[in-house]
Amino acid sequence: MIILGLDPGTAITGWGLIDAQGGSYRLLDYGTLRTKPGPSDAERLVRLHDSLCDLLLQKRPDCVAVEELFFNRNTTTAVPVGQARGVLLLACAKQGLPIAEYTPLQVKQALTGFGRAEKKQIQYMVARLLQMDAPPKNDDAADALAIAITHAHYYRGEKLLQDAAEGRKERR
Amino acid sequence: MIILGLDPGTAITGWGLIDAQGGSYRLLDYGTLRTKPGPSDAERLVRLHDSLCDLLLQKRPDCVAVEELFFNRNTTTAVPVGQARGVLLLACAKQGLPIAEYTPLQVKQALTGFGRAEKKQIQYMVARLLQMDAPPKNDDAADALAIAITHAHYYRGEKLLQDAAEGRKERR
Repeated sequence: MIILGLDPGTAITGWGLIDAQGGSYRLLDYGTLRTKPGPSDAERLVRLHDSLCDLLLQKRPDCVAVEELFFNRNTTTAVPVGQARGVLLLACAKQGLPIAEYTPLQVKQALTGFGRAEKKQIQYMVARLLQMDAPPKNDDAADALAIAITHAHYYRGEKLLQDAAEGRKERR
Repeated sequence: MIILGLDPGTAITGWGLIDAQGGSYRLLDYGTLRTKPGPSDAERLVRLHDSLCDLLLQKRPDCVAVEELFFNRNTTTAVPVGQARGVLLLACAKQGLPIAEYTPLQVKQALTGFGRAEKKQIQYMVARLLQMDAPPKNDDAADALAIAITHAHYYRGEKLLQDAAEGRKERR
């Protein structure tokens, strides 16, 4: 299953593509979508939207994973990041892709096993799980890979539970 | 000039259409785009986006006016409202429509002449300027009409200044 992880932002959206088979993950590619400040917010959203559409056509993922956003403090960026997230979700849904959302806590737990992991620990685990020499230099791309791994982790857990339930049914 | 005002929201987006000629405004239509909670955020954004595309095709405005969003306190809604606003801006920009943005202060000043006007006073002025018997019952539609009027107000001001500047050039 090819999973595209996304870390939305107006200026920089991180993306990371992995192939998850059973319990093992393979790095396929990662990068960033960058948009310069345009004549207007709307123009910038169009460029972000279109660049993700191009990426989806090029990489053909089976599903997409995005972090759920919480803003407790820095409210000035909540609206622009929400706008970017909106057009990215729209592009994925229009392509008929299943979209999974995970909280930062779920990402930390999936990658390190505990909810208070620091950013550096997450990045270390991304590199280790994907057999990279070092984590991606770009934080947004690293976060996107972390979200893709998180989806692989929970998806596999769910699938194992489903298989077990079906097994029980068959044994009856 | 036919102006579409928009008041973005995930559940309810208000819209209001006016025809502005010189200093006079004529009400054309108003209403709300409503989306029920769907299987996912993304599905809901798709429905909101598509219903605005339908409205744009049907009403053919010359331009769109949207309120700039500020969240100082209620941060839980900033991201979902940002997401809704993002897909609405995208739909308008994809149709090549000019988009104007105004702060709540600009809306209050355009409609009442002072920046501390209350919601009821704005709604009263919307009804008065558009010769309606009463303001729209739906607050989101009323806000959308207020934003459309705000654009007519500032646009006319800018145009008068431009004409004056061109007049000066010609007289030289």
